[in-house]
Amino acid sequence: MKFKLDINKETLTVEEKKSLEAMWRNCARRIILSTTLAGSGHPGGSLSSLHLLIMLYSVIRHKPADPRWPKRDRVVISMGHISPAAYSVLSEFGYFSEERFLLEFRKAGSPFAGHVEQGVPGIEWNTGNLGQGLSAAAAMALASKLKKQDNLVFCLMGDGEQQKGQVCEARRFAFKYQLSNLIAIVDRNRLQIGGDTQEVMPQNLRAEYKANGWNVIYLEDGHDVEDIFAALRRVKNQEVENPHAPTAIIARTIMSKGVSFMENRSKYHGQTLGLEEAQKALGELGFADDLSLWMEKRKKNQILSPSTHYTPPPPSIDSGAPIIYEAGKMTDNRSAYGAALLDMAKTNNIRGRCPKILGFSCDLEGSVKMDKFRDLCPEAFFEAGIQEHHTASIAGAMSREGFISFFSTFGVFGVGETYNQHRLNDINETSLKLVCTHLGLDVGEDGPTHQCIDYIGLLYNLFNFSIFLPADPNQTDRIVRYVTANPGNHFVGMGRSKIPVITDKKGKPFFGPDYKFEPGKADWLRRGKDGCIISYGAMIPRALAATDILQKKYGLSVSLLNMASIKPLDRRSVIKAAQPGVLVTVEDHNIYTGLGKIVGDVLAEEGIKTHFAKLGVTGYGASGVPDDLYRMQGLDPVSIAGTVKRLIKK
Amino acid sequence: MKFKLDINKETLTVEEKKSLEAMWRNCARRIILSTTLAGSGHPGGSLSSLHLLIMLYSVIRHKPADPRWPKRDRVVISMGHISPAAYSVLSEFGYFSEERFLLEFRKAGSPFAGHVEQGVPGIEWNTGNLGQGLSAAAAMALASKLKKQDNLVFCLMGDGEQQKGQVCEARRFAFKYQLSNLIAIVDRNRLQIGGDTQEVMPQNLRAEYKANGWNVIYLEDGHDVEDIFAALRRVKNQEVENPHAPTAIIARTIMSKGVSFMENRSKYHGQTLGLEEAQKALGELGFADDLSLWMEKRKKNQILSPSTHYTPPPPSIDSGAPIIYEAGKMTDNRSAYGAALLDMAKTNNIRGRCPKILGFSCDLEGSVKMDKFRDLCPEAFFEAGIQEHHTASIAGAMSREGFISFFSTFGVFGVGETYNQHRLNDINETSLKLVCTHLGLDVGEDGPTHQCIDYIGLLYNLFNFSIFLPADPNQTDRIVRYVTANPGNHFVGMGRSKIPVITDKKGKPFFGPDYKFEPGKADWLRRGKDGCIISYGAMIPRALAATDILQKKYGLSVSLLNMASIKPLDRRSVIKAAQPGVLVTVEDHNIYTGLGKIVGDVLAEEGIKTHFAKLGVTGYGASGVPDDLYRMQGLDPVSIAGTVKRLIKK
Repeated sequence: MKFKLDINKETLTVEEKKSLEAMWRNCARRIILSTTLAGSGHPGGSLSSLHLLIMLYSVIRHKPADPRWPKRDRVVISMGHISPAAYSVLSEFGYFSEERFLLEFRKAGSPFAGHVEQGVPGIEWNTGNLGQGLSAAAAMALASKLKKQDNLVFCLMGDGEQQKGQVCEARRFAFKYQLSNLIAIVDRNRLQIGGDTQEVMPQNLRAEYKANGWNVIYLEDGHDVEDIFAALRRVKNQEVENPHAPTAIIARTIMSKGVSFMENRSKYHGQTLGLEEAQKALGELGFADDLSLWMEKRKKNQILSPSTHYTPPPPSIDSGAPIIYEAGKMTDNRSAYGAALLDMAKTNNIRGRCPKILGFSCDLEGSVKMDKFRDLCPEAFFEAGIQEHHTASIAGAMSREGFISFFSTFGVFGVGETYNQHRLNDINETSLKLVCTHLGLDVGEDGPTHQCIDYIGLLYNLFNFSIFLPADPNQTDRIVRYVTANPGNHFVGMGRSKIPVITDKKGKPFFGPDYKFEPGKADWLRRGKDGCIISYGAMIPRALAATDILQKKYGLSVSLLNMASIKPLDRRSVIKAAQPGVLVTVEDHNIYTGLGKIVGDVLAEEGIKTHFAKLGVTGYGASGVPDDLYRMQGLDPVSIAGTVKRLIKK
Repeated sequence: MKFKLDINKETLTVEEKKSLEAMWRNCARRIILSTTLAGSGHPGGSLSSLHLLIMLYSVIRHKPADPRWPKRDRVVISMGHISPAAYSVLSEFGYFSEERFLLEFRKAGSPFAGHVEQGVPGIEWNTGNLGQGLSAAAAMALASKLKKQDNLVFCLMGDGEQQKGQVCEARRFAFKYQLSNLIAIVDRNRLQIGGDTQEVMPQNLRAEYKANGWNVIYLEDGHDVEDIFAALRRVKNQEVENPHAPTAIIARTIMSKGVSFMENRSKYHGQTLGLEEAQKALGELGFADDLSLWMEKRKKNQILSPSTHYTPPPPSIDSGAPIIYEAGKMTDNRSAYGAALLDMAKTNNIRGRCPKILGFSCDLEGSVKMDKFRDLCPEAFFEAGIQEHHTASIAGAMSREGFISFFSTFGVFGVGETYNQHRLNDINETSLKLVCTHLGLDVGEDGPTHQCIDYIGLLYNLFNFSIFLPADPNQTDRIVRYVTANPGNHFVGMGRSKIPVITDKKGKPFFGPDYKFEPGKADWLRRGKDGCIISYGAMIPRALAATDILQKKYGLSVSLLNMASIKPLDRRSVIKAAQPGVLVTVEDHNIYTGLGKIVGDVLAEEGIKTHFAKLGVTGYGASGVPDDLYRMQGLDPVSIAGTVKRLIKK
């Protein structure tokens, strides 16, 4: 079915209204059927937002047979739990057969998941964690602006999720960047799980949106198709107070609209009908499905849905020639990051054309050395303010819009504060380049709140993220170019301080012109026979100094393995490192959750018996110069050497 | 010095204004001195907020000699980086000598940290991560209301941090709970690191606060002591539009006020003056300190500051008698949690008196079974809406106000979404009871966004958190009572489904009337000689079934160790578990970051060689019934038994 309303007409015809009514009935039936058949799901909000969704798909520019058609208007479902409504409407508009949806909804292995997923044709973004959808929609709107496309982006949201702070952040960003092509549609059914939204958490939605600079259209009846049509015509024709600002349509609706005994009852947010009740509901809607027949079919059904697993084509990128940092000069890794980014921007972001490489930061672009990139290509740089949650989400979503998207801030803000945003990014198979500076005790005087000592412990939980920690400016340059040219969620972490260029025994840069970064390949900086230190990042110079002490003071030759690629891990080198019988990991990271534990686990899995010790941060750091902080935690060269020597003597 | 202004007077006397001017000069001097001597710190915002802070301490009820005096008004510094201003003013008011501050500022081991810390007398809350201070202040205001105390709570905030979404959440909560004793003071210097706040991220502060129901007092000149005095008098006397609502004083100030060449320059947010410039600045302020002398002294100085490390006395709690769940009945752990909480509330929360046990939830109290607690003692329950960031912070802060504070929601919201809030709680040495339900694939059809499979991986990073995962309703009951009666940040996690009561070989409840929960003590549910399975939580019934299969099908006797206490860990039992030579961990958790890796690391540290394998979740889960999801990940009894058998054969 390919129903379409002409947005330029003043009113709907009687025929059109009849068709809309029939479509609504079909979709309401599917909502009842799907949730009762699955025995779980969210009928209440699905029914309250149904008229809005049907009207939306009646006016947008889209091609159900080509769900990823580049010129399409977008619809992001932010409250992912109304999947029964979303799938019902998509099937009504011909994206897939209703049978597949009804037979597979909430069955393991099917794309028709309980919260909307991109595996279903027509779904633009996986949601489920409330409050993140508007950020993803803002990404799509921003992408259209950058590409000079005229499509619109709609974000359907629940009213409960308006309480999430990230929604405010997204609103401000959308206003700042004049995303006039972004339209939030709030299903204001005034019920959340806990009851009346105004009792659960009083909120003046209209005043909030207006305070953030948005146009607001309020609909007294979010089930009146004429009124919805008029509102959509206004936004399509930009008949709003500020045509440069985004617009919110706040539509007063009724939870579970259309089924008399379910209406306005908050329990139907997440409760489904039993067989008898469902039959009654279907009757009210004018249907007489045999539910037992459907159940029988569902039991026998094999999962057959076409997977629409979609990997957007990455832009063609020239990652350029390496910048070589000569031995003897101190440079911080973040400057090397900034220089590599700038260098690639010069080649790939051509003024006047749509940029390929984007940069996002949260009021820290100077500290993270993104400022020269900003100055060179201001149209590709987005200052998102102190709004890390929104920024993590939008930067992730931009990576699926044909851009190389960098998000840079301090580790505590870019990893710890935004972990759950990256988790949803990861589930959405984004290709984010997350480059965080100011890791570890190396931050020094700013103290424990600013010392990120959990970047491995946190990001290791995200299945699709790699974790890279360069040892010096040369390796930073090479890793930054690698992550730019290669798809995937890549984390690159570094400290704050200036560090020396790592050299080989002859004093030449170890990561010189011939060096090529390979994920999952560790670097043997020094080779020895008495033991091995495995380390990375800011600790490498200290670990090197420890090997010198061991050599000079005790005549011990100890290897140093640089584990710049933590994930994927170079297991073979770990096994090799254990061969001398003494293995010590050294890191500026929580000792219980970092590389040490990963190495320990490899040894256990491989059944390798060795003298093994971990050095790392054993408690929240103090506020002081890094050298003092390292000494307090046994991470200075003398302490490291002492630990290795004690193990060798054992 | 004990300066005090009478808030009931209409105006300030000439004498008072002279004193205030002198105090301001003294404090401005200390701001310049401390940051230049330390070579790092934040002079700009310190100077812009200085008049506000001085006026605040001139009118509040406080006793510098007794910083924790229970009747005091509270001052929370939300933008922790203005520590130079905070410490300067506190020393001016006699909390400690200026010398200690100037000699120790930002030196490792001293409480005078770069971001304010409670170790410094007069500081109420460690901050540094922006946007969390208002939540902590709301906790203090709420605590005063519950205790029927008439003190006020002031929260000094930067204008940049108003961009954080959590600030919106805190504002809404404070309005809902009529925290009329909470006053936010916003230092509106209109500069953040990136420049003009309105360029970095346009924001209509007054409209936002008003949209959230707050009273707003706007000060044209936040350096005019008369105006500040008048504003403070208004809030002290509740001369505001809505006396039930909290109030914001938004004060227009000048960054680096008082030093001509620093004023209105954003670079002085986080940049200090060199020696020469500092001398010049001091000259402008009317001082001629010899900086080199100070530096000499600072070098020689030993850290001497009195530590005011403060552990609030916990309320006396009767954790009651256990509820025993008999064998054969299926119960979900969350119901057992709810029953234990209700039972303890009956004894400890006496109607008409200040409650001892508090409950916080985010629109999920029914699902987490806190609803009966809510119905029994509504005055002790706080429905915070879908605002997890704020809720995590306020629940943590309440635990330092003499309450047993429970925060319950689903794992993805209570752990993943709020990790960084718990980190700041942990740094503040809170004593939060974080009880999360709906862990793991056990969530089923709600799919990957709702399946928390990283609770260990995340919380293991927080040094002061324990991690408990009960195996059945009986153990849940006992663990919930334990965490109620014992201080500390305790996480208790559980799944969603109903599970059987774990029994011993005779069929009696394993965690029966004689069982007492001990952290760091694992439970040998079954003993065998051919191998050992270590597991916990929702996987225990499946692991038990696996041991039965191994016994019946292959004649193998395999131990089952229940690791309900993941942190602290029972290392001795892990070592013992490895003795048969075959060890398999089984968990409904990311396989790379859960118990398996912890066990692996113990084996490596202890140098134990054994056949070791981990079973867990190897990729984001699907949406389907738990049994299907477990099967897909090799976590069903047959697969578990198969893995163990393969290792035994090796």
